[in-house]
Amino acid sequence: MDHLHELAGRVKAAAKELALYSTETKNRGLASIADALEARRAEILAANAQDVAEAEQNGVRPTMVDRLTLTDERIDSMAKGVRDVMALPDPVGEVMETVHRPNGLEIQKVRVPLGVIGIIYEARPNVTVDSAALCLKSGNAAFLRGGKEAFRSNMTLMSILRDALAQAGLNSDCMLLLDDTSHEMAREMMQLRGYIDVLIPRGGAGLIRSVLDNASLPVIETGTGNCHLYVDQSADLAMAVELLFNGKCSRPSVCNALETVLVHQDAAPAFLPAAKARLDEASVEWRGCPRTCALLPGIQPAAEQDYIDEFNDYILASRVVDSLDEALEHIAKYSTHHSECIVTQDPESARRFSAEVDAAAVYVNASTRFTDGGEFGLGAEIGISTQKMHARGPMGLRELTSYKYLIHGDGQIR
Amino acid sequence: MDHLHELAGRVKAAAKELALYSTETKNRGLASIADALEARRAEILAANAQDVAEAEQNGVRPTMVDRLTLTDERIDSMAKGVRDVMALPDPVGEVMETVHRPNGLEIQKVRVPLGVIGIIYEARPNVTVDSAALCLKSGNAAFLRGGKEAFRSNMTLMSILRDALAQAGLNSDCMLLLDDTSHEMAREMMQLRGYIDVLIPRGGAGLIRSVLDNASLPVIETGTGNCHLYVDQSADLAMAVELLFNGKCSRPSVCNALETVLVHQDAAPAFLPAAKARLDEASVEWRGCPRTCALLPGIQPAAEQDYIDEFNDYILASRVVDSLDEALEHIAKYSTHHSECIVTQDPESARRFSAEVDAAAVYVNASTRFTDGGEFGLGAEIGISTQKMHARGPMGLRELTSYKYLIHGDGQIR
Repeated sequence: MDHLHELAGRVKAAAKELALYSTETKNRGLASIADALEARRAEILAANAQDVAEAEQNGVRPTMVDRLTLTDERIDSMAKGVRDVMALPDPVGEVMETVHRPNGLEIQKVRVPLGVIGIIYEARPNVTVDSAALCLKSGNAAFLRGGKEAFRSNMTLMSILRDALAQAGLNSDCMLLLDDTSHEMAREMMQLRGYIDVLIPRGGAGLIRSVLDNASLPVIETGTGNCHLYVDQSADLAMAVELLFNGKCSRPSVCNALETVLVHQDAAPAFLPAAKARLDEASVEWRGCPRTCALLPGIQPAAEQDYIDEFNDYILASRVVDSLDEALEHIAKYSTHHSECIVTQDPESARRFSAEVDAAAVYVNASTRFTDGGEFGLGAEIGISTQKMHARGPMGLRELTSYKYLIHGDGQIR
Repeated sequence: MDHLHELAGRVKAAAKELALYSTETKNRGLASIADALEARRAEILAANAQDVAEAEQNGVRPTMVDRLTLTDERIDSMAKGVRDVMALPDPVGEVMETVHRPNGLEIQKVRVPLGVIGIIYEARPNVTVDSAALCLKSGNAAFLRGGKEAFRSNMTLMSILRDALAQAGLNSDCMLLLDDTSHEMAREMMQLRGYIDVLIPRGGAGLIRSVLDNASLPVIETGTGNCHLYVDQSADLAMAVELLFNGKCSRPSVCNALETVLVHQDAAPAFLPAAKARLDEASVEWRGCPRTCALLPGIQPAAEQDYIDEFNDYILASRVVDSLDEALEHIAKYSTHHSECIVTQDPESARRFSAEVDAAAVYVNASTRFTDGGEFGLGAEIGISTQKMHARGPMGLRELTSYKYLIHGDGQIR
């Protein structure tokens, strides 16, 4: 048996045990992890400093280096994140439904873990801790594969997590990190049918596409967000300006940030100059359709690609549309099915937009930035699903579970 | 654009429209279908007679010919099935949860269709009608691909279904049958990312494996059932005999039938001879482990393969085990995660079996034959999922849906 299968076999065996742990046992493991992260921060910082130095030598982009870098505050925040997960209700064992059949059978639908969750991610070492904690609380073993830039940080973090589990009396194989960051090994991992129950890629569009193309396992697509704000004819324009500013400027790098504003032609003459003035405060670059450019002289014209790209930056595409129908067509064509918003005072426009837009989260008069497990009241999240199968939108602990039917009888036959 | 993509594009366009149909509109379509099946039965029978004659000429097995054959009664039963689906509650639009956030946002989780469901099936023409009806009621467009033996029957049925939809004022592209039964075309269909949202194979283990191996789309695995009955030390032996007889003999060809009986060594001397005598009434062939053979002289010895196969026939594998642990190990090794049963009077054995067996349906003292949408109270089912993602166990209308979050605000920003 090769190394990958040996690791995967250990995680799978641990998953069987973990599925039967009580809430108390899992919380004991989480508490031990949080304490260990704080106690062993010097090791984490030392390993991370090596990763950061190497990344800088290799000319890695500063934004990527920033995501890679750990500080005392970020370690505190990882430990706090683990304690937050500890405080969330345990989904496992929840009786979702009970049916009593006329023949006397009692049928219970009971929540169970999925089994082994494979997480493939990039340079952010906090994903190691965060994913492992969510998997543990939901009774799932975690088989992780992080990016090569964060290799030393991740190996150190995982060794701390596993030690902490063992100290608390749990099977340390409930979480494992693949100690090989080659693309070949990642592709082999994506083929581990019978060992991994679901793959969740956490990262940019390139990573997600690579997992979708190479995996022979079920995948939950997460994260890509080409989000639109549609300013209807009847919109409260001051509200629309603030929703646009918040959606575009509060944190442009995240998936629930806005990328394109669509404006009804009747609202455009008043809305666009006011919006431009507000977004100028954050130096947002506009790329507009011809009608936008006519109303906002001096901005760049938008190319087709500008409606496709998730900018993740202070850049905004803008298009004036004739009608709600044209806005709906634009969204149907370019949406990544993440979060979409209409600003309107017309109940019929709101109703149509809600019904016809195919996205995980559809907003009427609120910022798309709210698409988030915490903001939705689910607690921590492992990602935002942009697919319809299994789970859609923010994925919390419940979304990391399946169910089984338990049927009790006294000899019933059919 | 090739023929396959042209068909798939039409189904996808219809799915958008169908997702917005009211319950009344969908039910009008279903009523029209049921009426048309009855009114045009002569066409169906004529097409089917040609399929059956050709199958017989080609030396197709009699059980397969039986599945292929339609009669007046089977047409009545198809029409009744459609009316039963009409009577089921519409899952689409159901508000699953409503959360009011402290910031004033109202977040609703609302059930929506999946989109386009691809069904790949074998020789049973009733699957055409049954799948199309369940998809229609759940707001999903159905893109079907049936086996070549039933080609004329399926084409005739689909033409009747589509005519009936059009007559009732619905878009007839809500359901389409692929008019090419080659394996190449089936494989291309399994790659239609962007057109088909989920593939559900309906048929034997070979079909399901082929879909899993070839599909680049999400698949829901259904149907393979290597089901076990474990007779515990403390079992009521008369009950155990009847549960075995019912599980093995009431309908051996179906997926919830029993294939293997595991018997605790203390129960074996009394249980096995009694069970053998009862199953002799249905001429069941036993294949036993050495300890079974010692207690039931004259039966065949079991080979490893006998514990793996889903016999779908009057054949039973039997093994005597030392303990509940050994039974759990056997089930973990050979189970297809469909339905598993323990017969016991000991609450602790029942508890362990329920917790530790990883299957869609786990029974205590009741027949595995109950794993069925109707018996579970879900109404009609499109299949029994043996996977954990998205849906597990019998899949009714709700299991053919996803959800979206609808968020209403009055200008909230984050």
